[in-house]
Amino acid sequence: MEKKIITISRQFGSGGHEVGMKLAQKLGVKFYDKELVDMLAKDGKYNADFIEANEEKCSPPMCPVMPGFSMPVFYQDLPSDLIYKGQSKLIRTLAERGPCVVVGRCADYILRNMNPVNCFVYGSLEARVNRKMSMIPEGLSFTREEIKKRVIDVDKKRAKYHEFYTDKRWGRMEDYDLCVNTDKVGIEGAVETIAAYVEHCK
Amino acid sequence: MEKKIITISRQFGSGGHEVGMKLAQKLGVKFYDKELVDMLAKDGKYNADFIEANEEKCSPPMCPVMPGFSMPVFYQDLPSDLIYKGQSKLIRTLAERGPCVVVGRCADYILRNMNPVNCFVYGSLEARVNRKMSMIPEGLSFTREEIKKRVIDVDKKRAKYHEFYTDKRWGRMEDYDLCVNTDKVGIEGAVETIAAYVEHCK
Repeated sequence: MEKKIITISRQFGSGGHEVGMKLAQKLGVKFYDKELVDMLAKDGKYNADFIEANEEKCSPPMCPVMPGFSMPVFYQDLPSDLIYKGQSKLIRTLAERGPCVVVGRCADYILRNMNPVNCFVYGSLEARVNRKMSMIPEGLSFTREEIKKRVIDVDKKRAKYHEFYTDKRWGRMEDYDLCVNTDKVGIEGAVETIAAYVEHCK
Repeated sequence: MEKKIITISRQFGSGGHEVGMKLAQKLGVKFYDKELVDMLAKDGKYNADFIEANEEKCSPPMCPVMPGFSMPVFYQDLPSDLIYKGQSKLIRTLAERGPCVVVGRCADYILRNMNPVNCFVYGSLEARVNRKMSMIPEGLSFTREEIKKRVIDVDKKRAKYHEFYTDKRWGRMEDYDLCVNTDKVGIEGAVETIAAYVEHCK
């Protein structure tokens, strides 16, 4: 099998990060998710906290991008735009080095000229809230309602971010090659499913 | 692997019928698509032509179903409703007999209490038109525009049918377990992908 560039977009709480990580291990390729934050921070322009606070966010909410334009010119110096530009360049450079799995950060759009396999990992709201509830660090306490609100809010932000910087709609089936619901198959099942798909990709 | 009931919804021209057929062969389970027309016709109430002309159509277009109701009472004697009721009963009976693959006909909704694996097979409009162009029988002639219009029209009818008889939206990712685009993997790749998913289903 020719090794591919795989992008994974994911609903919050669906396990998309773990799916991407295990998929990269299985295929023996590089994996980039939060690693991108540290790598960009190493460039020295911004520190990791600043990047994390401003990445995957759309600075001016509800401002749609015009088809054919990556972002309106008058917004180009906002923090999230600086991060977007830096991360885009970094993601392209890494993908040019060889096959990899990239999670989030509009990688499906940024790498569109490199024929990536674009996957979307999702799940029912109930299952995603359950997963996040089970991941609350010891000593902290959140109600189910608080977690549910966070799950919904993060996805809203991801959708806005994607729609602001690309001409695609986040989570619309037609914009992906494969969409895997983890409710019934878990992380391992999703990894095996994506691997089977990638193996047959032309 | 415990054998499952698998439903396949499909965009017209995506190859969903062939995917379902080959998947059933691979898994060694029964396959139902157009077979349902003949089986219902054998019951004797309606002939196959009448069924084919009225199945997977929504009699009164644009009339939404109320959540919790399968259809408005005053429409229950229209031809497509008679077919829907007959096919629903038949699909449930067949699924109760054992694992199978059922294509279209709202089987995902009809069998919702039997924990089916619900798949959606789709593709780009261009690829779907290409597939249908390649399937034009010898001696017949259609323009690309005519085929494109047919592809779009059939899917509109399927969407209306599904939305009329169920409380789900046809082709909305969240209503399926797995959504496979056949553009890059073809029929065989889609079959292997679904088989990998089904193998890991709890």
